[in-house]
Amino acid sequence: MKEKKASESFIVMNEMVMPNDTNHFGNLIGGRLMYWMDIAAAMSAAKHCNLPCMTASVDSLSFKTPIKLGNIVHIEAKVSRSFNSSMEIHVRAWGEDPLHQYVYASNEAYFTFVALDSNNNHKPIAAPTLIPETDEEKKLFDGALRRRQLRLVIAGKMKAEEAIELQAFFNTNE
Amino acid sequence: MKEKKASESFIVMNEMVMPNDTNHFGNLIGGRLMYWMDIAAAMSAAKHCNLPCMTASVDSLSFKTPIKLGNIVHIEAKVSRSFNSSMEIHVRAWGEDPLHQYVYASNEAYFTFVALDSNNNHKPIAAPTLIPETDEEKKLFDGALRRRQLRLVIAGKMKAEEAIELQAFFNTNE
Amino acid sequence: MKEKKASESFIVMNEMVMPNDTNHFGNLIGGRLMYWMDIAAAMSAAKHCNLPCMTASVDSLSFKTPIKLGNIVHIEAKVSRSFNSSMEIHVRAWGEDPLHQYVYASNEAYFTFVALDSNNNHKPIAAPTLIPETDEEKKLFDGALRRRQLRLVIAGKMKAEEAIELQAFFNTNE
Amino acid sequence: MKEKKASESFIVMNEMVMPNDTNHFGNLIGGRLMYWMDIAAAMSAAKHCNLPCMTASVDSLSFKTPIKLGNIVHIEAKVSRSFNSSMEIHVRAWGEDPLHQYVYASNEAYFTFVALDSNNNHKPIAAPTLIPETDEEKKLFDGALRRRQLRLVIAGKMKAEEAIELQAFFNTNE
Amino acid sequence: MKEKKASESFIVMNEMVMPNDTNHFGNLIGGRLMYWMDIAAAMSAAKHCNLPCMTASVDSLSFKTPIKLGNIVHIEAKVSRSFNSSMEIHVRAWGEDPLHQYVYASNEAYFTFVALDSNNNHKPIAAPTLIPETDEEKKLFDGALRRRQLRLVIAGKMKAEEAIELQAFFNTNE
Amino acid sequence: MKEKKASESFIVMNEMVMPNDTNHFGNLIGGRLMYWMDIAAAMSAAKHCNLPCMTASVDSLSFKTPIKLGNIVHIEAKVSRSFNSSMEIHVRAWGEDPLHQYVYASNEAYFTFVALDSNNNHKPIAAPTLIPETDEEKKLFDGALRRRQLRLVIAGKMKAEEAIELQAFFNTNE
Repeated sequence: MKEKKASESFIVMNEMVMPNDTNHFGNLIGGRLMYWMDIAAAMSAAKHCNLPCMTASVDSLSFKTPIKLGNIVHIEAKVSRSFNSSMEIHVRAWGEDPLHQYVYASNEAYFTFVALDSNNNHKPIAAPTLIPETDEEKKLFDGALRRRQLRLVIAGKMKAEEAIELQAFFNTNE
Repeated sequence: MKEKKASESFIVMNEMVMPNDTNHFGNLIGGRLMYWMDIAAAMSAAKHCNLPCMTASVDSLSFKTPIKLGNIVHIEAKVSRSFNSSMEIHVRAWGEDPLHQYVYASNEAYFTFVALDSNNNHKPIAAPTLIPETDEEKKLFDGALRRRQLRLVIAGKMKAEEAIELQAFFNTNE
Repeated sequence: MKEKKASESFIVMNEMVMPNDTNHFGNLIGGRLMYWMDIAAAMSAAKHCNLPCMTASVDSLSFKTPIKLGNIVHIEAKVSRSFNSSMEIHVRAWGEDPLHQYVYASNEAYFTFVALDSNNNHKPIAAPTLIPETDEEKKLFDGALRRRQLRLVIAGKMKAEEAIELQAFFNTNE
Repeated sequence: MKEKKASESFIVMNEMVMPNDTNHFGNLIGGRLMYWMDIAAAMSAAKHCNLPCMTASVDSLSFKTPIKLGNIVHIEAKVSRSFNSSMEIHVRAWGEDPLHQYVYASNEAYFTFVALDSNNNHKPIAAPTLIPETDEEKKLFDGALRRRQLRLVIAGKMKAEEAIELQAFFNTNE
Repeated sequence: MKEKKASESFIVMNEMVMPNDTNHFGNLIGGRLMYWMDIAAAMSAAKHCNLPCMTASVDSLSFKTPIKLGNIVHIEAKVSRSFNSSMEIHVRAWGEDPLHQYVYASNEAYFTFVALDSNNNHKPIAAPTLIPETDEEKKLFDGALRRRQLRLVIAGKMKAEEAIELQAFFNTNE
Repeated sequence: MKEKKASESFIVMNEMVMPNDTNHFGNLIGGRLMYWMDIAAAMSAAKHCNLPCMTASVDSLSFKTPIKLGNIVHIEAKVSRSFNSSMEIHVRAWGEDPLHQYVYASNEAYFTFVALDSNNNHKPIAAPTLIPETDEEKKLFDGALRRRQLRLVIAGKMKAEEAIELQAFFNTNE
């Protein structure tokens, strides 16, 4: 089974907010940011598994400070863990106002992508095992199991009492 | 306090999948669908509160059958509940292959939008109370509370033990 | 010969006017609206005949109230009649200002589409016969013959004295 | 009253058909061509009256040979006549296959634009009188009156029996 | 060996500057103009050699007066000389403010394109010899040799002392 | 006089080549790559001088290996030197085929941007002095003078015999 380091899937995007990306407040519209984050996640997934990939799901994401027209959108994506037939990709977005030298967090999300086998009718195929190295990568790797259980419970594919890591999280949270 | 029926915020979009909306499988890319769903949610929110609105968060969404190049993307959005300073909008998407007369569910998501006050420096302002009428609207209205608690717990803004409806859901689910 | 109801080809589009869709008055440019109306007509034609279709002609259309930046463009399309190798699609467009709850007619046009046979070198193929049901559908169905004669006379493919329905219309109009 | 020559409003566009401009036959979609023709007409109208202008109506247009992916779309626009508060612009489109050195007519349409007065709340304002010089310009100038009557009759703003030029055309056509 | 006149490759583009083409000064962004100039050069190259072509290089270009939102961008391209396996295309761009009837030079560049052989694995293939006719075409034809040497010296593919025409230019310039 | 490190202006873009970015070989069109490189240069310039900037000129650039549909375009930009009223930005582009783990150089260019003073009618204003730190930054810093002389000679703003660094380069090159 092939293994790859988390850092090998790291990708950075910087985009400039153009008029057509904005609403009538002159702020980046949410859907345009999600579009870019999905592209970033797709590139990260492709770098990790060297196979064509497609979006399977996106976890909840919340928009903090809105990003203004003319500002820079900075997006970073990195695979956080791979499962049998899917990968979780951690995507973060910041706004940057270059005139006032001000960087502000915008949002963060977890995307799940599936690698597809070109030689087998585009059926899902196992992605390489992910090796986390830094503390942050290890923390994301550990949390991935809990987030996956939450996805399965929400999708009705796992019973809540079987979601061990998720329950532990709720207890810890208390 | 103003009240509005759920049906008044209902909006339908139909889009044709064009080459630039697709990945190398000829399938609609996830980010493009999220973009359209956000636009649909924005129009629904604006119809409900007659005020400029912006995306605050999006709940987890999973992509089922991929939508093919040349097919129709059918999107429906309707406000499911309004809270103090936010509204939840329920958005569903289907693919339709007009040549084979085949309609297939693609995905479903809950968006949260905030109404902003043009007369008060774009600060959040209360949206009209939502009145659900049909059984489906009532079910979505009831579930909105639980989904909101899940959002707050995930965002670290509510303790898990205070999320009464969410806990009831986990128990019921067992 | 296959038959289909007018209502089966009904399609709704709602689009939000973005900055790049506008001229220097902040109004939706005419060409962008025609683009959307053509896409709506194409989806309606494809739903009616379940075959790939292409635009053959567009009747005259006039632009009434301009649609503003940030407003919603609401488009409805429905097949009004099918002929040997073509269909007429009736397309209407409205603007909607969600902040002031104001809906205004923008324009109306008749598109003609041709269905093409994938199995016969993309040559035109007969579309299903259209069955109008409502009063409005019947009125559109009846007028379609006259509009088709006008198209043929303008295109120089029919002599004016052979355009019976068209002449009756001119007489009635007097 | 200001006068301008027809040739002063002449404008040429050449566009290359890109993937996103095409349908599933690899042909330019009708709506995209109408979009470009409207832009060409807008530039021609602006050159004629040196004022901001907007689309008022488009006469019927029919699509002949479809234009293929990678081919060149050649569009020419020129004002054919100005009326009190509007101008008629004649727009023609050809396809050109540079590899096979083949040029083919695609379609032709008459657009009506209105000039707007920036100093008077964007109300319609008289455009300069058009002076046709070539035989073709004179023919277009003469026909403009008949086409205008047809527009008014279709729009229900003129009775058919008052449309003198239009009736003469129908008689001549016989 | 086939020969073609310079005038046969002449192509004109006119584009209207839309909001998404502009920076926060409301001026056309440089990259968007380069995009249009490349498309114009590609159409000119295709008309000259009737073969698929691709951009090989672009000489230095400088932006003079910025082009404003709503203004017209006028681009002209014409092949200036063909070499063994490449062509030089001369591209010029102007801005035009139709309201104030003001035309201003924006920039000028030399593009090099390579013609590719569809029958030989897309390898470069000789383009027809160019025949300059007007004085301007002859001047561009003569200068093409010097510009090509400058390109080769900059690319490190030719020694400076072998660039005879380039050296003559530097001497003349003194 | 303010000073800034070269590394502070460093910016990375990663873009995925979509259908509409390609020509009929399925390769990224040159104009689209130039567009992205200009955006990258604009972001780098804005980070360096914290002022609105605009493109003044682009040095010659040549396209090496074409970048394929679905591949990743990796662009890096960094200010190489600032002059009185302008900055030179060094931009490099690579293609990356994630499926075959193959990275290939595509091209390299020097952009010149001018910083503009919002408080003085958008007139040019001095950018901070650039401090190169690494060996590569120092080499780019030193070469910037020669490239600037070449620009000025080509633009006819400097006599060839005054271009000391440029002449030294030609001699060295011999």
